[in-house]
Amino acid sequence: MDSVSFLSVVKDYKAVFIDSYGVLKNHKGLIEGVQNSIDFIRKEEIALRVLTNDASRSQEQQAREFEKLGLRGIQEEEIITSGMLARQFLELKVKTGKVAYLGTKNSADYIIQNGMKQLPVSDVDLEELDEITAFAFLDDEGFDWRNDINKAVNFLRRKNLPVIVANSDKYYPTSKNDVAIAIGGLSRLIESILNQKFIRFGKPDSQMFMYAFEDLNRFGHYEKSDVLMVGDTLHTDILGGNKFGLKTLLVLSGNTRPNNVNLKISSTGIIPDFVSDSILY
Amino acid sequence: MDSVSFLSVVKDYKAVFIDSYGVLKNHKGLIEGVQNSIDFIRKEEIALRVLTNDASRSQEQQAREFEKLGLRGIQEEEIITSGMLARQFLELKVKTGKVAYLGTKNSADYIIQNGMKQLPVSDVDLEELDEITAFAFLDDEGFDWRNDINKAVNFLRRKNLPVIVANSDKYYPTSKNDVAIAIGGLSRLIESILNQKFIRFGKPDSQMFMYAFEDLNRFGHYEKSDVLMVGDTLHTDILGGNKFGLKTLLVLSGNTRPNNVNLKISSTGIIPDFVSDSILY
Amino acid sequence: MDSVSFLSVVKDYKAVFIDSYGVLKNHKGLIEGVQNSIDFIRKEEIALRVLTNDASRSQEQQAREFEKLGLRGIQEEEIITSGMLARQFLELKVKTGKVAYLGTKNSADYIIQNGMKQLPVSDVDLEELDEITAFAFLDDEGFDWRNDINKAVNFLRRKNLPVIVANSDKYYPTSKNDVAIAIGGLSRLIESILNQKFIRFGKPDSQMFMYAFEDLNRFGHYEKSDVLMVGDTLHTDILGGNKFGLKTLLVLSGNTRPNNVNLKISSTGIIPDFVSDSILY
Amino acid sequence: MDSVSFLSVVKDYKAVFIDSYGVLKNHKGLIEGVQNSIDFIRKEEIALRVLTNDASRSQEQQAREFEKLGLRGIQEEEIITSGMLARQFLELKVKTGKVAYLGTKNSADYIIQNGMKQLPVSDVDLEELDEITAFAFLDDEGFDWRNDINKAVNFLRRKNLPVIVANSDKYYPTSKNDVAIAIGGLSRLIESILNQKFIRFGKPDSQMFMYAFEDLNRFGHYEKSDVLMVGDTLHTDILGGNKFGLKTLLVLSGNTRPNNVNLKISSTGIIPDFVSDSILY
Repeated sequence: MDSVSFLSVVKDYKAVFIDSYGVLKNHKGLIEGVQNSIDFIRKEEIALRVLTNDASRSQEQQAREFEKLGLRGIQEEEIITSGMLARQFLELKVKTGKVAYLGTKNSADYIIQNGMKQLPVSDVDLEELDEITAFAFLDDEGFDWRNDINKAVNFLRRKNLPVIVANSDKYYPTSKNDVAIAIGGLSRLIESILNQKFIRFGKPDSQMFMYAFEDLNRFGHYEKSDVLMVGDTLHTDILGGNKFGLKTLLVLSGNTRPNNVNLKISSTGIIPDFVSDSILY
Repeated sequence: MDSVSFLSVVKDYKAVFIDSYGVLKNHKGLIEGVQNSIDFIRKEEIALRVLTNDASRSQEQQAREFEKLGLRGIQEEEIITSGMLARQFLELKVKTGKVAYLGTKNSADYIIQNGMKQLPVSDVDLEELDEITAFAFLDDEGFDWRNDINKAVNFLRRKNLPVIVANSDKYYPTSKNDVAIAIGGLSRLIESILNQKFIRFGKPDSQMFMYAFEDLNRFGHYEKSDVLMVGDTLHTDILGGNKFGLKTLLVLSGNTRPNNVNLKISSTGIIPDFVSDSILY
Repeated sequence: MDSVSFLSVVKDYKAVFIDSYGVLKNHKGLIEGVQNSIDFIRKEEIALRVLTNDASRSQEQQAREFEKLGLRGIQEEEIITSGMLARQFLELKVKTGKVAYLGTKNSADYIIQNGMKQLPVSDVDLEELDEITAFAFLDDEGFDWRNDINKAVNFLRRKNLPVIVANSDKYYPTSKNDVAIAIGGLSRLIESILNQKFIRFGKPDSQMFMYAFEDLNRFGHYEKSDVLMVGDTLHTDILGGNKFGLKTLLVLSGNTRPNNVNLKISSTGIIPDFVSDSILY
Repeated sequence: MDSVSFLSVVKDYKAVFIDSYGVLKNHKGLIEGVQNSIDFIRKEEIALRVLTNDASRSQEQQAREFEKLGLRGIQEEEIITSGMLARQFLELKVKTGKVAYLGTKNSADYIIQNGMKQLPVSDVDLEELDEITAFAFLDDEGFDWRNDINKAVNFLRRKNLPVIVANSDKYYPTSKNDVAIAIGGLSRLIESILNQKFIRFGKPDSQMFMYAFEDLNRFGHYEKSDVLMVGDTLHTDILGGNKFGLKTLLVLSGNTRPNNVNLKISSTGIIPDFVSDSILY
């Protein structure tokens, strides 16, 4: 596919959904020049939402992080994380009791709220499971992998309860060449041991797009055809956007590289409507 | 889990989503006594939607089928099929050109419309693929399995385009003991040959529930907590309903049987909020 | 990897195992020039076995086929098919009764022998399963796909017995661009419907290599380090040969093409010891 | 299936292959009474091999462990571990250089020998990979899971080399109710991150049975029909024994329990020739 100008495409839409990592920022910090693109979007009065599978931090923390990196003008309310969907699930379907979790205290603080109590797996007493009402995979940090992953397996062999995964990504980049296994990857290991499927939140699932789309419509009237989804990953951003019925634009500033974009599109069968080098031009 | 009365549960909700096969009807026809339950739902002024992964027939055809079986009062507009989501995708993302398909002429008639032309795989000329803009798996009947499945494989090896599956079920019951492979099962075979993933519509995907929920809200104000999802299959009805944030009720009149319901719930980890023998009481 | 001369490599070995399709022949017939290479192998007194996942025809039929194509000097006894392993399994583990099968009469004739009776799925009476002692997937031809695949599913839902797959390949080439789904691919569809795993024969499984290696040692003394495995497919020939402990040589005259061989090796992690354009030089 | 007497079955065979964990010992130590059965096997002059997927310890260490538990008469040479197959692979296919590994020093000591150097992943310098010739998953202990699993992922993203798994089990029992994830389970997580398949050793793979069978034949003449395979796990012991062409006997003293043996046999389609409560009678 030929690469086109992001700015010339986005100006035809009333709203844009943007992935964070690989589009706005990367392992080195802000991608240079994105401030101009955000300013352009504001000037054109295009509504903006940032859709991220990073469940480790709250909307507010992610907004502050953008500011710290030097990107101005992303509002807390414009950021939608897969962790918010996990929180919504707990509020609708679990409501009370203790939620055992693997992750950081910080991730638990914003996802497990409103009458539910947090219980890190390390503090679970395997002989006293009565009050525990759900299990949540939140983040790949904040616990001892060997002890707590094995303990989670044995916990889940003993008690049948709702199990959710707040970030369905298998891994995330930590530098130009390196990655780290994400909590979504660890949750798949445990699914395979137990021969079960947990409830996963985040792109490419339609629910993430629905949440953003409904939120958008609280501030105006938007059809799906009014919205452009922008991301760097075929399997999450583009697949999810396509399935939800949005136009999709793949950028080559992150996961998908200019030298193999055509091979990846043809081998996966996931086809964006547009391809741009980045959101800079 | 203890079995409870469906009627005593449903009366606490403003709306109910009901699966068709295994709840309202089965291979022998209408499940005896469901007319009373539908009448009860009407009398209590509970809104109703029927959610079905049967993509072979249109809303209108499915409504007429209920009438023919002797069930009165299900309106065409209350029926939501996975085929309607497939049609919506084609209208939003494909729009023009020829859509090659595996299925019956009838399934193509209601899914491939509005400026798109239908092209059964048997009529595809593998040397002339330019005008074809999408591929659709619609139904397991209406074509020669050996010739047309192999032809579909070779078509998809040559041309990279959106591929959709209008019914994601692997198989469907044809009698008390027997099943037939559904188009969702055949599509998985072709995915495995090509090493690709197609876009699938139908429960348990959130999009089906979202479609029904949005449709409901065109006629009143409903929160997710106002809706009860009722179905006979853990992996589609209950998993999908749970994930979307609805309360779920499993009936034992179809796929899931009284003698192994507890084993199935604990081995899959998919937990309904309620279990009832059927919707009769 | 740099391409090397097959002839200069093979002369250092006491025996060579050669895949048939993609190395000796292709969809157009014999690969031009292979007679010279076979003559070279004979002149150097290197022992030869042909290892093929083609279970549709017997050793004798495959030998005659080589002759008909114009390749002289391949003995019937030098050909080892995955069907022979299936036959061996039936003789060791089943022994008596009727073996229901999907495939051609010809494939049944050489695989189901010695006191066992053949029963094509189309002739199975689903109410009379007592005498049936095994089920065999033999070939993708010789039956009505829709009727007989669905019938096989319902048969296997009713009776628990040994199920074998005589050719584990997913598909096979039918022309330069086209493929056809093999019985190994169809068997996977049925595994997925039943949620079971059948017993599969053929490369890359060690059993195929063991059979050839033991056969070789009936005529002399060979260590694993004396044998070179030659094939065109990473996932069957090279993976299987590597795991069995043989040196492996990938040819680029079949499935794996010169333009993407390095990409395929690095993305699969299956690494041949040598790469040659073909066996011609 | 009806349960039969192990002793009355085994006496009809010239050799017996016995799984270790769940048949001879369990988390509490030796299974009481197995000494009598081993003595019976000796008295009847039935050849014996112990086949175990425990790659953490050498033949010698496993023999001493049996002695320490109080079981007399199991010779070092009669024990066959999946680690021995891994060692054989390294000797045949790798031969020189450094082998990076995840596992204990002890497991490396007996698997990585003869001219190859051991290199724990924690000591790998990701900028200096030239001398490393293979990667081995040996044991789930002996390393920091979070650091070293992530480091292994990034190592394998940078360098394409043979990767082996010395124990293909997903998990192993640690008490009556509890399990721990085995190195085979961890290796699958990394396969899923990299989208590759590693080379796995151990039951149910035919290679394990072939190794034992060949070893047996160094001391006499045995046909496959002379050997009985005994184990507690359908997916490893029974599946592997069946496929290799041996008669198989499932014991109910380990993984498979009397209350669900029939359900497990019918749902997996893995059918032993005999079922016994244990090897005691």
